[in-house]
Amino acid sequence: MQPFSLPTRDSTGQLADRLARSAATTRGAHLPTDGFTDWLAERGRLNTFRVDRIPFAALDGWSFEEPTGNLAHRSGRFFTVEGLRVTERDGPYGDGPYAHWHQPVIKQPEVGILGILAKEFDGVLHFLMQAKMEPGNPGLLQLSPTVQATRSNYTGAHRGAGVKYIEHFTGPGRGRVIADVLQSEHGSWFYRKANRNMIVEAVGEVPLLDDFCWLTLGQIAALLHRDNVVNMDSRTVLSCLPLPPDSSTALLRDTELLSWITGERARHDVQADRVPLAGLPGWRRHEHAIEHEEGRYFKVVAVSVQAGNREVTSWTQPLFEPVGRGVTAFLSRTFDGVRHVLVHARVEGGFLDTIELGPTVQYTPENYAHLPEKERPAFLDTVLEAPADRIRYAAVHAEEGGRFLNAESRYLVVEAEEWQAPLNPPPGYAWVTPDQLRRLVRHGHYLNVQARTLLACLNAMRAGIA
Amino acid sequence: MQPFSLPTRDSTGQLADRLARSAATTRGAHLPTDGFTDWLAERGRLNTFRVDRIPFAALDGWSFEEPTGNLAHRSGRFFTVEGLRVTERDGPYGDGPYAHWHQPVIKQPEVGILGILAKEFDGVLHFLMQAKMEPGNPGLLQLSPTVQATRSNYTGAHRGAGVKYIEHFTGPGRGRVIADVLQSEHGSWFYRKANRNMIVEAVGEVPLLDDFCWLTLGQIAALLHRDNVVNMDSRTVLSCLPLPPDSSTALLRDTELLSWITGERARHDVQADRVPLAGLPGWRRHEHAIEHEEGRYFKVVAVSVQAGNREVTSWTQPLFEPVGRGVTAFLSRTFDGVRHVLVHARVEGGFLDTIELGPTVQYTPENYAHLPEKERPAFLDTVLEAPADRIRYAAVHAEEGGRFLNAESRYLVVEAEEWQAPLNPPPGYAWVTPDQLRRLVRHGHYLNVQARTLLACLNAMRAGIA
Repeated sequence: MQPFSLPTRDSTGQLADRLARSAATTRGAHLPTDGFTDWLAERGRLNTFRVDRIPFAALDGWSFEEPTGNLAHRSGRFFTVEGLRVTERDGPYGDGPYAHWHQPVIKQPEVGILGILAKEFDGVLHFLMQAKMEPGNPGLLQLSPTVQATRSNYTGAHRGAGVKYIEHFTGPGRGRVIADVLQSEHGSWFYRKANRNMIVEAVGEVPLLDDFCWLTLGQIAALLHRDNVVNMDSRTVLSCLPLPPDSSTALLRDTELLSWITGERARHDVQADRVPLAGLPGWRRHEHAIEHEEGRYFKVVAVSVQAGNREVTSWTQPLFEPVGRGVTAFLSRTFDGVRHVLVHARVEGGFLDTIELGPTVQYTPENYAHLPEKERPAFLDTVLEAPADRIRYAAVHAEEGGRFLNAESRYLVVEAEEWQAPLNPPPGYAWVTPDQLRRLVRHGHYLNVQARTLLACLNAMRAGIA
Repeated sequence: MQPFSLPTRDSTGQLADRLARSAATTRGAHLPTDGFTDWLAERGRLNTFRVDRIPFAALDGWSFEEPTGNLAHRSGRFFTVEGLRVTERDGPYGDGPYAHWHQPVIKQPEVGILGILAKEFDGVLHFLMQAKMEPGNPGLLQLSPTVQATRSNYTGAHRGAGVKYIEHFTGPGRGRVIADVLQSEHGSWFYRKANRNMIVEAVGEVPLLDDFCWLTLGQIAALLHRDNVVNMDSRTVLSCLPLPPDSSTALLRDTELLSWITGERARHDVQADRVPLAGLPGWRRHEHAIEHEEGRYFKVVAVSVQAGNREVTSWTQPLFEPVGRGVTAFLSRTFDGVRHVLVHARVEGGFLDTIELGPTVQYTPENYAHLPEKERPAFLDTVLEAPADRIRYAAVHAEEGGRFLNAESRYLVVEAEEWQAPLNPPPGYAWVTPDQLRRLVRHGHYLNVQARTLLACLNAMRAGIA
């Protein structure tokens, strides 16, 4: 065998510089940011979509199975809606007043791919984004990753067209991997769902297909400051970008942070069992919805979809619809010149491993409106009452429109004072730097999907496009 | 609030130097390595132990519950023996001939602490190890971590003495954390079991109690070359030491390695469901054992224990007893002057997340003796037939003696050639450097417990004590 030289293991330095250049570039080689709104509107005109609420009985191929009452597709694919019983014996620690509850949950065991393709134009990395309709999106059409595919999608269970650009992510001739990590999805709505988050730099020419556009990170950062443009799948993938570190110091050393997370995982004792959807305590099934008895949390509903540019032209499906708009926020403070955000070790019934780090605040205020003040979630009022001059970032984003209907949250980064968010936070909370979050997100099951959206927003703030 | 300076996040450099110094020190401040055998024998003389096999009917407090037939303690604590049904739809890939199987499994949901206390003597870090009896250990007495405690232990379900030194690991006044990570245990025998692996540097004086001794890493490395001295709990904790990197190059860049692991996780579709132990297909319960119909894999047995220095003085319990001695090995090659070992992305039914990285070879040869040559596990014969001059490390170690009876494996590191282990390995295998393993082991669920033992052995080889 010929002798050969090994590559340096950590080649992120040069890549980080290229990513930083893309973040600083607000003038894309293909589409000016000013022209984006028109482009997206044009895509909408060329592709007509219609979403209608329907009763469960009008679902095609979906039915409530006997005797479980679980909602499933006759093919056995896609996903099922089942019941979940959660018992948290050591909690809760500020993450809601309930230590034992039942809820519907989406079970979708297959791992999908969320992939963004990158390519250099004029010496600057651009990212290939897609104008994609999802039935649950406010406005229907949002900016999605290059590839957003369940395994059913690309193995043909949809009986639809092949997934465009998938060969850049799965084939032997795929490009250079920038990030590739299994990340959890909503632990309050999914049972142990994870998707593969990938960013790949293309090798060779890439044809530009209809409904796709190349954007710099600077352009995407500008769009992340607009309401309901960049979809959840894009945000979680963007959070995995290995951007250059902005600080080498922090309140907690990295070893201390990992130890704190280990301690949080160990001290929570969560038992989550799948149970039949039929007869789920506290929930009622009507003709059009499965609802909580007190009207809280979310509903399971059904829709029919007519679309022109999807893999198949029409279908029906269940969706989860939250009862109100969420508030999802990091409280932020600057210590010794370094920005920190306050993470919360959250228990969500569908997580693989007891806790993941979430935002400081992740609540739907309506769910807590009935509670006396001292039982209200920690830090929620600080966020709700924040004056405009303390808000460093705010935009409304929706969760995955393929599963969630109008699941909007106001995402915020809010500057706090010692009396609002002390240097020594309560149990279950820790101050970390955005760069520490960027290190954690290289591995799965550290940051929940809402924290990843906020990390993408923190990255966008840093790009300086606000 | 007073201004203050933040610490540097990554302070591993100075610590790594101190660990390297301890690894280079073969002369401990407290006990010469030559005197260790006498010390351990003396501990054995002062503490009389007796372990007897008993029929299940003679178990005290343990019984087969109706109607599941699960073996459980009347307190509801400790652990249960249940059934597991595993279906791997996308596999197998060289990890055994079975894609669907049933097996007994140990369910022990609580997170224990395995902790080693460190302290400097004469400017060199020493580690506090314990001569500890476990009923399943060959020779009964082995070297365990400072603390080896289930949550039942230190919350009193044993109705026994408090766990010595536990305050260094859990209290608010605990020492400086060197490592703290949740690691999986045997995925073939445990259902989703994880323990907290901790190394903590003590603050202030530490009294030396009976049955404990301070050893340098150099001394421990020497003991790791002996058969059945350093127990599994010690080995997994030692694998988490943040030793200084020995190379900054590797066949796979770190990003490529993480991507390969993500791909392996995503391509395996494993469904593991707990089922009743009663009537488990392929397994039979007798008066003294639950056995596989063809005598393969392992048995569930029961023992009575009489001990002097345990938390309580006598007890009975079930144990898993493998049918033969295992062979657990890394094949190793040197590329461009850098040692690499061949890891295997293994599916084990009890893993939390489909695969973890295991050794190249991790088999009990007896289980495969009936198979034709081409169906035998990959690389097994290369290890079994390795001439002495290709064996870089070999010692017999036992798995956890609190749950496993005589569960011995021969652990090896074997030098291979291109024709035995090619540069481009088969699917499911990858060449990685020991330093890449040291980076992965800072996080849970990357390395299985056998790979962690071998990583501790690789560290011991490097200490140069062979």
